[in-house]
Amino acid sequence: MITEEQVLERIRRARERRPRIRDERITLAHGAGGKASQSLIESMFVEAFRNPALELLGDGAVLGVDGARLAFTTDSYVVSPLFFPGGDIGDLAVNGTVNDLAVTGARPLYLSAGFILEEGFPTADLHRIVTSMAEAAKAAGVEIVTGDTKVVGRGKADGCYINTAGVGVVEHTLSVARVRPGDTVMVSGPIAEHGVTVMLARGELDIEADLTSDTAPLHDLIATLLNAVPQTRMLRDATRGGVATVLNEMARTSNTAIVVDESAVPIRPQVNGACELLGMDPLYVACEGRFIAVVPAEDADTALAALQTHPKGQNAAVIATVQADPPGLVLARTAFGGTRVIDTLVGDPLPRIC
Amino acid sequence: MITEEQVLERIRRARERRPRIRDERITLAHGAGGKASQSLIESMFVEAFRNPALELLGDGAVLGVDGARLAFTTDSYVVSPLFFPGGDIGDLAVNGTVNDLAVTGARPLYLSAGFILEEGFPTADLHRIVTSMAEAAKAAGVEIVTGDTKVVGRGKADGCYINTAGVGVVEHTLSVARVRPGDTVMVSGPIAEHGVTVMLARGELDIEADLTSDTAPLHDLIATLLNAVPQTRMLRDATRGGVATVLNEMARTSNTAIVVDESAVPIRPQVNGACELLGMDPLYVACEGRFIAVVPAEDADTALAALQTHPKGQNAAVIATVQADPPGLVLARTAFGGTRVIDTLVGDPLPRIC
Repeated sequence: MITEEQVLERIRRARERRPRIRDERITLAHGAGGKASQSLIESMFVEAFRNPALELLGDGAVLGVDGARLAFTTDSYVVSPLFFPGGDIGDLAVNGTVNDLAVTGARPLYLSAGFILEEGFPTADLHRIVTSMAEAAKAAGVEIVTGDTKVVGRGKADGCYINTAGVGVVEHTLSVARVRPGDTVMVSGPIAEHGVTVMLARGELDIEADLTSDTAPLHDLIATLLNAVPQTRMLRDATRGGVATVLNEMARTSNTAIVVDESAVPIRPQVNGACELLGMDPLYVACEGRFIAVVPAEDADTALAALQTHPKGQNAAVIATVQADPPGLVLARTAFGGTRVIDTLVGDPLPRIC
Repeated sequence: MITEEQVLERIRRARERRPRIRDERITLAHGAGGKASQSLIESMFVEAFRNPALELLGDGAVLGVDGARLAFTTDSYVVSPLFFPGGDIGDLAVNGTVNDLAVTGARPLYLSAGFILEEGFPTADLHRIVTSMAEAAKAAGVEIVTGDTKVVGRGKADGCYINTAGVGVVEHTLSVARVRPGDTVMVSGPIAEHGVTVMLARGELDIEADLTSDTAPLHDLIATLLNAVPQTRMLRDATRGGVATVLNEMARTSNTAIVVDESAVPIRPQVNGACELLGMDPLYVACEGRFIAVVPAEDADTALAALQTHPKGQNAAVIATVQADPPGLVLARTAFGGTRVIDTLVGDPLPRIC
């Protein structure tokens, strides 16, 4: 059994071997959350900005400030279209940052909002987005306390991009370094709904389906889980790159194997159907209101029961277990009794879904 | 003599009378920091997000978090060109947020960085920008601890946009509500250098001048001033819209008159010359390394001496006094003994300079 400190040391050593970025130009894949994103982040940003908070980066940094323990996180939103069934770029930008704080173990408190608007963007659309942000902030119990607006000329943006950063108070210590062989992995609800909904909302494909985005603030569901199982190892929201990408990051940084029971992964039939038509594996499709939780095996029943009592966690399910070998890999037990490797996302099959 | 509380009440009441936004579409002027920006912010953002921190918004919000007193601020950077004499979008993005924290009375600590990249952007340029950010962060004593990267398709951005948000610990209480008739207004150095440099760097105008941007972190110069004169009323960095815009915001929110001695405003001859050729008033041109300070009249000599002992404040100067009447207006005493109104910026003569 290795100690938490040894895991951190392994992560540090792995970072020393970080990949070089070989591409001469940025591609859509660099923004997709998969292999190219990872190599860009590690070879460019971690290398240049090198500091402990960033090197162990999860969804947000945990910082000691003036005696307080804070979480700090940021995300830019470039989703297309701006409005889609179940949400828009406004509530997505609020919920996304609320969730990045919550999965860090923090109580979300304050958000900033930075707008980049394209000249000619309808003020009525901006009003709709801003109203949606205000409602999402209210629902999540956070305040948008500072902001900025820039306008660029026609053809230099795509209507409206939003950055939100967030600050919260850390109340629970969660970290990938706490994951251990034997742990149980669960997902808080049916996957892939956001990504599929946004793809279909573009109207480029002749597919109709009764789907809505799952965008939602998860702070309350997470609080319910952490109250029931304070010894929860780690949480991660399954956004860009989907559940498969989160599991791969977990396996790689904790140097464990994660073995997924594919038939246990909750997916609504219409999402499955749309993914088949789109030729996509739902495991790689983004959610915006679901998280992955890793808990000690002995707490799995308590954790699952806690999630399922909450309206947002009714369909939570155990989907995988953590093993010692083969380290760094995610494996799937298929419905037919076979095993396959679930690799890190390559390329960008779903550009601009958040 | 009215109390600070009465000034705050006046600000609140003025907000109740906030303007409606009448434009059907966003224009470049909405991003310029002047009249249109103000009406967009007040009618759209303050209205929707309504909370005390936002309503009294300076360059950043001051928040109580878990016993700590924090400043929190954000800015997006869309400057064109990305590289210009004296700096680039990278150090601009770090220095701008460091300065927004510092003028709030905070010691800057941590920054986030959110990138929106256009497909096809050269990775060598990104590397240059990221290196510049890392150097600027080091010079300002802050750490970039969390980040995000999005990529949009060709023609949906202009190379690279950066959002930085920042967190600091508030060490001094500064507020426009503390400004009083009789106070002295000073500027920390020669104005308009950043805006003019960026305009000329576009190469669209056939003007050559030996100019560099003034982009710089101001936290150390501000600390020097606040140590010497802790009773400093307020600080504001003179970015978008320049010194004239800062003074107008001050006059309006503190309900005082600000009387500027135009001949006392420090401007380098080559900046003055370029402004004449460009047909611009340097009072409206952005600085990225200068701030306005308001101090009690009896502390003006001490404040000026403190600024001038610091390498970044050698050319600091007293430029204006605060009067009771006419409330809300900025007036200039011209070199010829006359008086003119310095109005809020209308339109956007200098798009995308930060």
